[in-house]
Amino acid sequence: MRLDEIVARLGGTLAGDGSIIVSQVATLASAGPGQIAFLVNPKYRQQLQTTRAAAVILSPQFADATDLPRLIHPNPYACYARVVGLLNPQPARPTGAHASAVVHSPLPASVSVGENAVVGSAVVLGENVVIHAGCVIGDGVAIGDDSVLYPNVVIYHDCQIGRRAVIQAGAVIGGDGFGFAREGERWLKIPQIGRVIIGDDVEVGANTSIDRGALDDTVIGDGVKLDNQIQIAHNVVIGENSAMAGCVGIAGSTKIGRRCTVGGAGMIIGHLELADDTHVSAGSLVSKSLRKPGQYTSIYPLEAHADWLHNAAQIRRLGALAERVAELEKALARVSASSPGSDAGQSE
Amino acid sequence: MRLDEIVARLGGTLAGDGSIIVSQVATLASAGPGQIAFLVNPKYRQQLQTTRAAAVILSPQFADATDLPRLIHPNPYACYARVVGLLNPQPARPTGAHASAVVHSPLPASVSVGENAVVGSAVVLGENVVIHAGCVIGDGVAIGDDSVLYPNVVIYHDCQIGRRAVIQAGAVIGGDGFGFAREGERWLKIPQIGRVIIGDDVEVGANTSIDRGALDDTVIGDGVKLDNQIQIAHNVVIGENSAMAGCVGIAGSTKIGRRCTVGGAGMIIGHLELADDTHVSAGSLVSKSLRKPGQYTSIYPLEAHADWLHNAAQIRRLGALAERVAELEKALARVSASSPGSDAGQSE
Amino acid sequence: MRLDEIVARLGGTLAGDGSIIVSQVATLASAGPGQIAFLVNPKYRQQLQTTRAAAVILSPQFADATDLPRLIHPNPYACYARVVGLLNPQPARPTGAHASAVVHSPLPASVSVGENAVVGSAVVLGENVVIHAGCVIGDGVAIGDDSVLYPNVVIYHDCQIGRRAVIQAGAVIGGDGFGFAREGERWLKIPQIGRVIIGDDVEVGANTSIDRGALDDTVIGDGVKLDNQIQIAHNVVIGENSAMAGCVGIAGSTKIGRRCTVGGAGMIIGHLELADDTHVSAGSLVSKSLRKPGQYTSIYPLEAHADWLHNAAQIRRLGALAERVAELEKALARVSASSPGSDAGQSE
Repeated sequence: MRLDEIVARLGGTLAGDGSIIVSQVATLASAGPGQIAFLVNPKYRQQLQTTRAAAVILSPQFADATDLPRLIHPNPYACYARVVGLLNPQPARPTGAHASAVVHSPLPASVSVGENAVVGSAVVLGENVVIHAGCVIGDGVAIGDDSVLYPNVVIYHDCQIGRRAVIQAGAVIGGDGFGFAREGERWLKIPQIGRVIIGDDVEVGANTSIDRGALDDTVIGDGVKLDNQIQIAHNVVIGENSAMAGCVGIAGSTKIGRRCTVGGAGMIIGHLELADDTHVSAGSLVSKSLRKPGQYTSIYPLEAHADWLHNAAQIRRLGALAERVAELEKALARVSASSPGSDAGQSE
Repeated sequence: MRLDEIVARLGGTLAGDGSIIVSQVATLASAGPGQIAFLVNPKYRQQLQTTRAAAVILSPQFADATDLPRLIHPNPYACYARVVGLLNPQPARPTGAHASAVVHSPLPASVSVGENAVVGSAVVLGENVVIHAGCVIGDGVAIGDDSVLYPNVVIYHDCQIGRRAVIQAGAVIGGDGFGFAREGERWLKIPQIGRVIIGDDVEVGANTSIDRGALDDTVIGDGVKLDNQIQIAHNVVIGENSAMAGCVGIAGSTKIGRRCTVGGAGMIIGHLELADDTHVSAGSLVSKSLRKPGQYTSIYPLEAHADWLHNAAQIRRLGALAERVAELEKALARVSASSPGSDAGQSE
Repeated sequence: MRLDEIVARLGGTLAGDGSIIVSQVATLASAGPGQIAFLVNPKYRQQLQTTRAAAVILSPQFADATDLPRLIHPNPYACYARVVGLLNPQPARPTGAHASAVVHSPLPASVSVGENAVVGSAVVLGENVVIHAGCVIGDGVAIGDDSVLYPNVVIYHDCQIGRRAVIQAGAVIGGDGFGFAREGERWLKIPQIGRVIIGDDVEVGANTSIDRGALDDTVIGDGVKLDNQIQIAHNVVIGENSAMAGCVGIAGSTKIGRRCTVGGAGMIIGHLELADDTHVSAGSLVSKSLRKPGQYTSIYPLEAHADWLHNAAQIRRLGALAERVAELEKALARVSASSPGSDAGQSE
């Protein structure tokens, strides 16, 4: 595709030879002939001098840092994302249901249902929905236009998924929440009669699970992005455009605000509230509500194991150490008070 | 269903108008006409005044806190669980195997096998077992009466599952344990010839995995409840009625007692023993056996990131700090001994 | 199988009666007649006196510690692994594709494709590949000789897997990496056009996910072993013969060296490099590159909850405590300097 064609489609400003043809996107370091690279992080600026890319996407700030044909855009990272999409269109899936699929509901003609997939009864699929092989869509499920479910996804009965969803393989949406009542030594299962309600433009990662609500619903807001191996418990509510990295766990009934982020393996216990724009660092455990936006962390600093042994041993004596310091302060005050030179000493 | 009918079925005491009809369960805050709510946590007691529920489940202690028709029960939470079940019966699955299923073993007439499910040879299924779509049941597996396997569950060969099991979608039971012998720089696979043996009344969460034993079996006791995204390694033994929240990991050969709980993302390393009634807090790592029942915790406290930076920097100097305090104590003792007013100071 | 036959096949030295027949492997503690046990950990040496095993595998160091027929081998653990394999051959799978499988590519005659599995177009499978039931193999995938994919594995389009791979059930290889560009409040998906390239002799655990690269590939080296519930993000590179225990997460673009190990639930953030022979302890979070081989740890030590409350409360005051100790040191120096006996005191 010609560079000026890309600019015409995606916006931004062209500088240099717009007739150059680019066929793929690559990093500044690895790009070769016919490839378009991008500069987002200023620390890679030097690579503009050595790149073999045919063209570059960059911000106005760096517009003069190279003579290569270039697409100047105020958000070069988003522009890069769009160019990747433009040059790598998804192969069209055949519409209709494969002969091996088992479909119990009428489907729009634009829908694609893959091999051995199962679509339950009273399922409502929007236009252009793609259900890959081996998916199981429960009775009464609704999925909005242009959503894609990769292979072996399971959606339990009555859950709702918005438009343009991307659900990666092996994800499970709508499994029973983990609800049990103690009865003597035993646990009595509490039937989970809520649903999972997912907004528009949501991505759910591979092998992630989102449980249905106990009575009310579990709710995932518009634009939420969930990575792989995530656990979302029953009755969690996640606000619009929040994003969570791999291996995160959110326990039951916790409410996450809008535009929040949780780093990898972050864990948030149940029945909490996190304000809009709260950010939890990777590996951190949140055990109380966070009412103020900002970044929060609970990581024990990494050390070489021998150093860790030496320092961590003190953790179990930390209360005692604090008391010893308080004692020292009191004792020193007594000594200072009785010392002949104490006043002079204090005033030094 | 009439309230007096519910009391007749589930026990407890009726107060107020037993002829009232309830059709669904809801929280005190969200209940509307025709719905029955419940009071378990005393902090929601005020909501009894404002609820629009038609009836309430509560404990004898709060029997007089409302005039609404009410079901008084010593364990209102368990009673609530049963009422939910009563008002929301599971839709019956068609018995027999769907035409698209592949079944290599004879099945009881009461069994239901869903679309595209696979049942191996020499499989023994109890009465009323429900195998949802896409499940794969290996050769030689046994599953007890009234168990339910949700879609895309995999049970490897020769594993045994008890009665009334509930296995959520995507769970994998009986995969190879992670056993390798070092041979120079390489790892040599140790074939895993044990099985997974699961007792009665066990729940296994979505995308949870339980590995088969290396030589002996991995054993999950009666009444154990496992949430989603859990990893149970080879030769783990979990005692009766223990429960584990999402994202927990139990490493190889660890033995967990009865009535234990592990909070979300708790991790227990291998070859340990946890006593009956041991409780591990969410996010905690257990690296030694716990012989005494009780609650155990290993969480670095969460802070605003700037505060964390300030305080966490001290962790790597904690051993040195403790030595400095010991030095201070010695030095102060010397100063005090030589100070003219020290005795008086000490006696203040 | 006769013991001398085993020695002839696997190497090592025979001592005692080689005509003894062994049919299964067991631990020293549990072995019975006809079973061969092994001694690897010297702490179980006493069990040599009481074992009812018919024969034992042990190292030259313990060759005289028993009179039982024995296989003496310099690496008894690897020898044990091989004896298990010898006595427990995998049952052969029928070659060809089951009638219920959907196969869009020509297959070697030695390949086995299970019930309801799906093989896309332009797929290249090596000799003796076994695809179990319910797997979905995307278009353009290549899988090397003698690899085994257990049920319900998903391999996305264009990924490559080497020879002798073992992929446990529910694993997902080649899902989209978690790549989004901020655009105002929203996240714009960056199409992920890289692949996953997996070397020879790799094992991937149940429900583990490995994402495809954004532009370049995600690369898993020869001999890498990954346990269950692991998340490998886009563009991660893992060096040869590294091994990771359950629930590990590796964030995007991180490069792990050769012969590294990561303990259970270890988490490594993105864009880092770990040197060859780096070992990360279970439950540890790595937030900076580790250039020197060795063992690294970041665990908050476990305590009984009441002790934890007492000690952890000090963490948030740790910076202040360190400042108080520094103040004490200064104040004591002043007092000592002004104290009449200070010189004598210091010299004690």
